[in-house]
Amino acid sequence: MIETPRPVAAIILAAGDGTRMNSAQPKPLHAVGGLSLLRHAIHAAETMEPARLTVVTPDGADAVADAAKAAHPGAETVEQNERLGTGHAVLAARGALAAHDGDAVVLYADTPFIRAETLAEMRARRAAGADVVVLGFRAANPGGYGRLVMEGDALLAIVEAKDATPAERAIDLCNSGVVLADSGRLLSLLGEVGNDNAKGEYYLTDIVAIARRHGLKAAVVECPEAETLGVNSRADLAAAEAAFQVRAREAAMAGGATLIAPETVFFSHDTSLGRDVTVEPNVVFGPGVTVSDGAKIRGFSHLEDCAVAARAVVGPFARLRPGAEIGEGAKIGNFVEVKNARFAAGAKANHLAYIGDATVGAGANIGAGVITCNYDGVLKHRTSIGEGAFIGTNSSLVAPVSVGVGAYVASGTVLVADVPDDALAIARARQEHKLGFVARFRTKLQARKAAGAKEQS
Amino acid sequence: MIETPRPVAAIILAAGDGTRMNSAQPKPLHAVGGLSLLRHAIHAAETMEPARLTVVTPDGADAVADAAKAAHPGAETVEQNERLGTGHAVLAARGALAAHDGDAVVLYADTPFIRAETLAEMRARRAAGADVVVLGFRAANPGGYGRLVMEGDALLAIVEAKDATPAERAIDLCNSGVVLADSGRLLSLLGEVGNDNAKGEYYLTDIVAIARRHGLKAAVVECPEAETLGVNSRADLAAAEAAFQVRAREAAMAGGATLIAPETVFFSHDTSLGRDVTVEPNVVFGPGVTVSDGAKIRGFSHLEDCAVAARAVVGPFARLRPGAEIGEGAKIGNFVEVKNARFAAGAKANHLAYIGDATVGAGANIGAGVITCNYDGVLKHRTSIGEGAFIGTNSSLVAPVSVGVGAYVASGTVLVADVPDDALAIARARQEHKLGFVARFRTKLQARKAAGAKEQS
Amino acid sequence: MIETPRPVAAIILAAGDGTRMNSAQPKPLHAVGGLSLLRHAIHAAETMEPARLTVVTPDGADAVADAAKAAHPGAETVEQNERLGTGHAVLAARGALAAHDGDAVVLYADTPFIRAETLAEMRARRAAGADVVVLGFRAANPGGYGRLVMEGDALLAIVEAKDATPAERAIDLCNSGVVLADSGRLLSLLGEVGNDNAKGEYYLTDIVAIARRHGLKAAVVECPEAETLGVNSRADLAAAEAAFQVRAREAAMAGGATLIAPETVFFSHDTSLGRDVTVEPNVVFGPGVTVSDGAKIRGFSHLEDCAVAARAVVGPFARLRPGAEIGEGAKIGNFVEVKNARFAAGAKANHLAYIGDATVGAGANIGAGVITCNYDGVLKHRTSIGEGAFIGTNSSLVAPVSVGVGAYVASGTVLVADVPDDALAIARARQEHKLGFVARFRTKLQARKAAGAKEQS
Repeated sequence: MIETPRPVAAIILAAGDGTRMNSAQPKPLHAVGGLSLLRHAIHAAETMEPARLTVVTPDGADAVADAAKAAHPGAETVEQNERLGTGHAVLAARGALAAHDGDAVVLYADTPFIRAETLAEMRARRAAGADVVVLGFRAANPGGYGRLVMEGDALLAIVEAKDATPAERAIDLCNSGVVLADSGRLLSLLGEVGNDNAKGEYYLTDIVAIARRHGLKAAVVECPEAETLGVNSRADLAAAEAAFQVRAREAAMAGGATLIAPETVFFSHDTSLGRDVTVEPNVVFGPGVTVSDGAKIRGFSHLEDCAVAARAVVGPFARLRPGAEIGEGAKIGNFVEVKNARFAAGAKANHLAYIGDATVGAGANIGAGVITCNYDGVLKHRTSIGEGAFIGTNSSLVAPVSVGVGAYVASGTVLVADVPDDALAIARARQEHKLGFVARFRTKLQARKAAGAKEQS
Repeated sequence: MIETPRPVAAIILAAGDGTRMNSAQPKPLHAVGGLSLLRHAIHAAETMEPARLTVVTPDGADAVADAAKAAHPGAETVEQNERLGTGHAVLAARGALAAHDGDAVVLYADTPFIRAETLAEMRARRAAGADVVVLGFRAANPGGYGRLVMEGDALLAIVEAKDATPAERAIDLCNSGVVLADSGRLLSLLGEVGNDNAKGEYYLTDIVAIARRHGLKAAVVECPEAETLGVNSRADLAAAEAAFQVRAREAAMAGGATLIAPETVFFSHDTSLGRDVTVEPNVVFGPGVTVSDGAKIRGFSHLEDCAVAARAVVGPFARLRPGAEIGEGAKIGNFVEVKNARFAAGAKANHLAYIGDATVGAGANIGAGVITCNYDGVLKHRTSIGEGAFIGTNSSLVAPVSVGVGAYVASGTVLVADVPDDALAIARARQEHKLGFVARFRTKLQARKAAGAKEQS
Repeated sequence: MIETPRPVAAIILAAGDGTRMNSAQPKPLHAVGGLSLLRHAIHAAETMEPARLTVVTPDGADAVADAAKAAHPGAETVEQNERLGTGHAVLAARGALAAHDGDAVVLYADTPFIRAETLAEMRARRAAGADVVVLGFRAANPGGYGRLVMEGDALLAIVEAKDATPAERAIDLCNSGVVLADSGRLLSLLGEVGNDNAKGEYYLTDIVAIARRHGLKAAVVECPEAETLGVNSRADLAAAEAAFQVRAREAAMAGGATLIAPETVFFSHDTSLGRDVTVEPNVVFGPGVTVSDGAKIRGFSHLEDCAVAARAVVGPFARLRPGAEIGEGAKIGNFVEVKNARFAAGAKANHLAYIGDATVGAGANIGAGVITCNYDGVLKHRTSIGEGAFIGTNSSLVAPVSVGVGAYVASGTVLVADVPDDALAIARARQEHKLGFVARFRTKLQARKAAGAKEQS
């Protein structure tokens, strides 16, 4: 009997102490792919379009609660005041469970990579008649994981590794901790869980055996072990990041991007690369980057929250900061930083420049060493550079200032006033020569040096 | 009976559709080690000093034909107008085969890494009496590869995986597709190949069974599986690149270079490193780079089409563009770009500079922030810096311009006229102080800010 | 019977010819983790607080002897004039052995990664009654290693691989070459070693069988194979470096640092990272770097011999050279080089700058393109920037010079005189406009171009 999946309440446990992270920052706020573990878990929950979403946070961890609310409008947060086990943690969300008419799923901030398909399969299993659905995986090294004791399709019990018989220890089907059941039922089962064990904790896993005693059916959905990857230490975090990067690189290549050395390209959770994009070795994509078809991102480039249009060329050694928009066929070269600035089609800044809070017209050419002085120590101001303008080397553009269409700014100019279209702006002292100066100067310096001035290298 | 190898005509099949590359660019033009797959295949063919070289290109792919002609003077190209299998593709080169008195070898643009030794061994086997020589390899996972059915040394047939009996599927000796035979014989055998199969295609592999029916001898030469690595997707391309890089790194180390972290150093097909060259982590060598004995390439450097002389030091964060020639013991430091410029022995540009279209004399010192203004918006011009000259910081050298031997250019100068030897050139406004200015300025700005000017960060 | 370990004389063999390194530099001076192999070996020896330390160097290799003396005050060096085997090499230190009352340990510059615990275990075994203690390891591929032939706990002999019987070849317990014995005893045993073998060399390993003949006890201490990693080629050197980096990365993460992509972060032997330090992908730590709690080292940064205080942010694309001290919460941004300069708390240099030989006051802001002109061609001079000062873009600070507290330096200024507190310093030509200039200029250039001037790109 297949029914429509029921509305679901998601409970995300984010109250683990994370001692092994050795960090002042709560574990759920550590990031993978530029996104916190908590947000990964919330994203997983959101694939079910949950009727309510409750995050159980550590006592006093306002940062975790704030992050949950920022990530999911309408998210509820409750604190777990004592750490008395996963069963106790779920009961911190007692109010949400009691108020919800439908199913409830328990997820974890430190095991946040469950796929939508897996959660959908768990709901389908519920719809097909299972009262409690547990997510399991085949472990390469079952070690300390709880074992799922099966009889045919039926889950009989979850046995902790330390309590397992030799036969049970030989089982490789392990417990991920993710559970789905009717919301009210989950609450009543949890009410029967005791803490008569070595640690004196209330284990969520005990609900399976209790459910069986009540004649209820428990079932298992299996997923690949990688999906249940947990994060308990910085090394685990690095491993999760590495797994994320492998998937992101494969997806980019399948989408028609050439990654010359995929293992040196780092993506964020939302990086978007078009077809026939080429990425050279050693590129870092921070969050919020879109690169369109045929663009080339050369080596040693660092991009964050920016857009690169079709056939543009960025790098090597380019830094695109938030708000950079690089137009079609435009070029951003080596040692160039762009922030909150729009380059129109074909515009170029090929060398050693900082362009911030600016617009650069189509085909304009920014010389080497050009700097927009966008900050006066208190406020930020904008610079506007017209179509086809040419900004000479080592110029400083003191914003607010504009350069007209087709205008030139001579090398070394400190530009403080707007330049009309087609005009040349220049601010320069006359070049003078002091003949024979160097010989005299060297003699003087050598004497000073000999006299004891300390040379440093 | 060993005879001299006969003159060979090389047929390179480059007409596959490359759908899985998901690219607007034809597959043979995708690159490994900075060289297109097509060029790799042509290089392999060239090791045999072929009497003629014919590339079978896709219908209308002028770019492939042009690349073939650019790579090999005298290369012929023919189009395969329909895609009816490898046998059909070879027949597109019918004219070349008919006109050639000698042997013909069939190679592939997407399996381009066959070594010279392997091809020589195939020719030797021909000379020793085999009529058809097929290149095979032992596959770790034979999967969908055609199997080579042997009887002792004799190749009986090539069986497609899907047509293979269980016993044949157990064979791990697989077909690379590379074939060598007398040119006229190949043509006549191909004339007998039919298309009575599931795909309705003409398979080159069928010539083996046909040859056997005519009482001819077919033989196999084996090569390592890595040598027959094929490229069908971007992931394959990345794998081929990775294999290329592993070989290049090992060769560089065996040649006496220290690669501190070899896995982070990227070579091109023609990179040349001398003895006791040190390469720090994260260096990219584009095509055309030569680094001489004892030079040091520090981390985060990017070199293309340039030469670094003995004991020079480049980087970290240096970019050498085409035409850079860095002299003996010269130094190019961080955030410095050099293009089409020659640094004589002992010259230095240690920080934040762009030197393009220039010559820099022995021992000259280029200060931080120095920029050659080599482009006036229309033309490029040259800068000449004399031996022992000293160019002050943040100077702009407006080319064409020259600085004499031993001359100084003062900091911040925009240099528009030639500087005599030993002279100091200076172009500078007098420094003035406005006392108490800052307090008044800050007050004014704070007021403006309070009045509503929007602060951006 | 357990006794206190006896005082030890360390003999470090550093006289191997290193032919396979293919290098003009003696093998012991090649480095791992920024420290020479010789220094690694000396550090290992120093964990035993040796009464004397003798390095056996190649004939005429003054650089090795000098390095030994620089690394360990009081180190003795002796030359091995001929290369007649390890036994012969130890005898080069005959004088040291004869003069020492206690034990002697033989170590190797090209097997320098023996841990303190392992050496302590060897000494404990001596104290427990073994006359000769040999360090062994279980080899995954015993191949050409000498085999340790045991009888219970007793070492009977060391058999060279080429002299081994099939039964002996099956032994996987192999000889590292490290040996501990009474100093005088070692000397007398070596006196009995002959050179009646294929190579005509004197093997240190022969002392085990000789000792047995004298009724002495030989014992083995086992260590992991990785600890006995030897360096004979550049590829071995890279493998040793890789093993070092894996350990360093794991230690940093265990200490509470987040390494987003640990495989792209390179440490030196003495790198120190605090808790909650974040290191983005692609960072190189040269020797002498300390990073305090909560600091962030962004991607593509290169640090050497510098200190980064708590919560400071460095990079991306930052270079900190020796003597850089970055204060609490200070920021060093992209394409910025800092050398021998102290940034007080909250000071910033966010873009494209070179600050050398300087002090920067708390909260001061260094604009983009600012350069300290610390070198006049002969001497280096210092720059001092006051608290809260603001240095405008593209300024050159000609040292020695100071900028007062709260002072401003206008963009493009070449600063040659000290600036009072709260003053504005400015040196600037007036901006002028030449209307319609660009159209005339373009026409002229196009004409010149058409007239044949060669355009280069």
